[in-house]
Amino acid sequence: MGSSARIHRLGRGNIHTYWSNALRPGLTVAPGDTVIFETLDSSYGRVARDIRELAPPGVDQGLLALVAADAYPEQSTMDREVELPRGHPLTGPVAVTGAEPGDTLVVSVVRVEPAAWGFTIAHADPDRPGLLNDCLPEHSGSYLHVWDLRGDGAAIFKPGIRIPLAPFCGVLGVAPAEPGQHSTVPPGRHGGNLDLRHLTAGSTLHLPVLVAGALLSVGDVHAAQGDGEVSGTGIETAATVTLRLDLISGSAPEHPRMLTSGEPLSLPGPYHVTAGTGTDLRQAARTALRGTIGYLTAQHRLTPAEAYVLASACVDLKISQLVNMPSYTVAAYLPLGVFE
Amino acid sequence: MGSSARIHRLGRGNIHTYWSNALRPGLTVAPGDTVIFETLDSSYGRVARDIRELAPPGVDQGLLALVAADAYPEQSTMDREVELPRGHPLTGPVAVTGAEPGDTLVVSVVRVEPAAWGFTIAHADPDRPGLLNDCLPEHSGSYLHVWDLRGDGAAIFKPGIRIPLAPFCGVLGVAPAEPGQHSTVPPGRHGGNLDLRHLTAGSTLHLPVLVAGALLSVGDVHAAQGDGEVSGTGIETAATVTLRLDLISGSAPEHPRMLTSGEPLSLPGPYHVTAGTGTDLRQAARTALRGTIGYLTAQHRLTPAEAYVLASACVDLKISQLVNMPSYTVAAYLPLGVFE
Repeated sequence: MGSSARIHRLGRGNIHTYWSNALRPGLTVAPGDTVIFETLDSSYGRVARDIRELAPPGVDQGLLALVAADAYPEQSTMDREVELPRGHPLTGPVAVTGAEPGDTLVVSVVRVEPAAWGFTIAHADPDRPGLLNDCLPEHSGSYLHVWDLRGDGAAIFKPGIRIPLAPFCGVLGVAPAEPGQHSTVPPGRHGGNLDLRHLTAGSTLHLPVLVAGALLSVGDVHAAQGDGEVSGTGIETAATVTLRLDLISGSAPEHPRMLTSGEPLSLPGPYHVTAGTGTDLRQAARTALRGTIGYLTAQHRLTPAEAYVLASACVDLKISQLVNMPSYTVAAYLPLGVFE
Repeated sequence: MGSSARIHRLGRGNIHTYWSNALRPGLTVAPGDTVIFETLDSSYGRVARDIRELAPPGVDQGLLALVAADAYPEQSTMDREVELPRGHPLTGPVAVTGAEPGDTLVVSVVRVEPAAWGFTIAHADPDRPGLLNDCLPEHSGSYLHVWDLRGDGAAIFKPGIRIPLAPFCGVLGVAPAEPGQHSTVPPGRHGGNLDLRHLTAGSTLHLPVLVAGALLSVGDVHAAQGDGEVSGTGIETAATVTLRLDLISGSAPEHPRMLTSGEPLSLPGPYHVTAGTGTDLRQAARTALRGTIGYLTAQHRLTPAEAYVLASACVDLKISQLVNMPSYTVAAYLPLGVFE
């Protein structure tokens, strides 16, 4: 560490779409070193490639041109032998010299710089990701929302609705101990797709080292997201991510741990809160979110798809209580400060 | 409303321990009126009556004497024909003139003043309330923690650990439409035991009117509580609660809704966060909380029972994501600002 610590770069030539401890590191660094990662958005650039056909209504031509200019080739060279459905494009892995199973990898988030635009998708199809896809008209397909992220620290939803940027890596993890290829979708002890929205710059994540070298990869940056990520996507964006990597010998945590100032921990209030109750937490969360979607469509004249997307980007799901058997309370907090 | 609005008082002579639309109102008020309720703690005064026998270790004699002086008779006159296990002692009901099913009862929380002490209980018995009772030694019984609430706006856990007071009614609801006696434990469309910790002074709760007169009751004040109320109790306390009651004709919400500034929305950070993942939200929450309990016992030298109780009073459970099938993320946020 100290004066010998180095700064490395890892570009988009090092993309993989599954977890595996057999992936060859794109970079090997010493503890104390800093790595600047270039990450792709979770669509692997598909939204940018297809933007002219998707042509979401209401998006201005300048923004569409910006998106189109960001198109990324369909497939990276590293990813030719994937047996799984393609997962999140992750930049990595980075090996850390000396990391051994049982150690703790300490990831300090120095900076996360999103691209100039982002997107959020809402699906009507009940088999696609999302907590409340049935809030959309049946068979209405998928709704793509394109966000302008050039708004002075805010993501512009539409005139009069802005969400402060709070970018973080939706996926940040180490290679699992188990051999083979593993989906990037479910998170786990290795970290991965945790979608911890407070893993913003200034935060520190402790991950267990599960294989020699740790093999860290990152991606799926969200420019902002509510706790819950209810429509299945945050504000998905490509990004430049600066992480400092350190090791603690031993003490591998049983589960990922984070220290965060969480700024901003919550978006500006006051808050419109719907309390959902039910014998199942997910059902209680659905009820709460349905109340929020109803409020947004009635009071702010959004379409259900717009409301669902906006909620995914800024509504927080809190477990108010899970002890008053047989009914839990999950509350959906909408920060009214997003409305100017 | 306006100059004709009146202020009423409802004392502890009007206690009931179940929900029923057959209860006779202790008070009938007009829309726009304010009611000051005296509420009992959730033990119905049992902790105060038994404090000498319970004798929690480490509590000073002055505080014990204060608790003992607050003993309340075992049973109120209203409660002689209860068929259910005794629930939360609720003060009420209050009838609102003109309230009809389908209307909206608007409850503005003017003030919530807790007593000078409170308590939190953690149970080892897996059949008692609590998310992680197995964090306590098997057959170790129940642990009673007594809090001193006279600490200049804070609940004193022990020297060096203080939680800002943020008192709210754990139970606030209207009589259900269904006839008969109903347990106070599960919350529902009528509100009730929602344990919405941001229902603090300055907040407004909208409840559906389900029977003529609405029949509002309140109780179970918590001087503070974390989202989740993980050990099954917040900082339970008797209180004086001032509510203003208004009516909106029609527009009964499908579920309780709240407008809150949420001050303080979160306790002072930074935050130690454990990310629990799992295919079941409750299981993910258990994993997250286990990490927090482990941190508190290792880093702050608390016993598991102390850690569990402290977590119930100040740790927030957030649903980070519930869309990355088949694994959810629930994160437990411990505000490190509670440590001086």
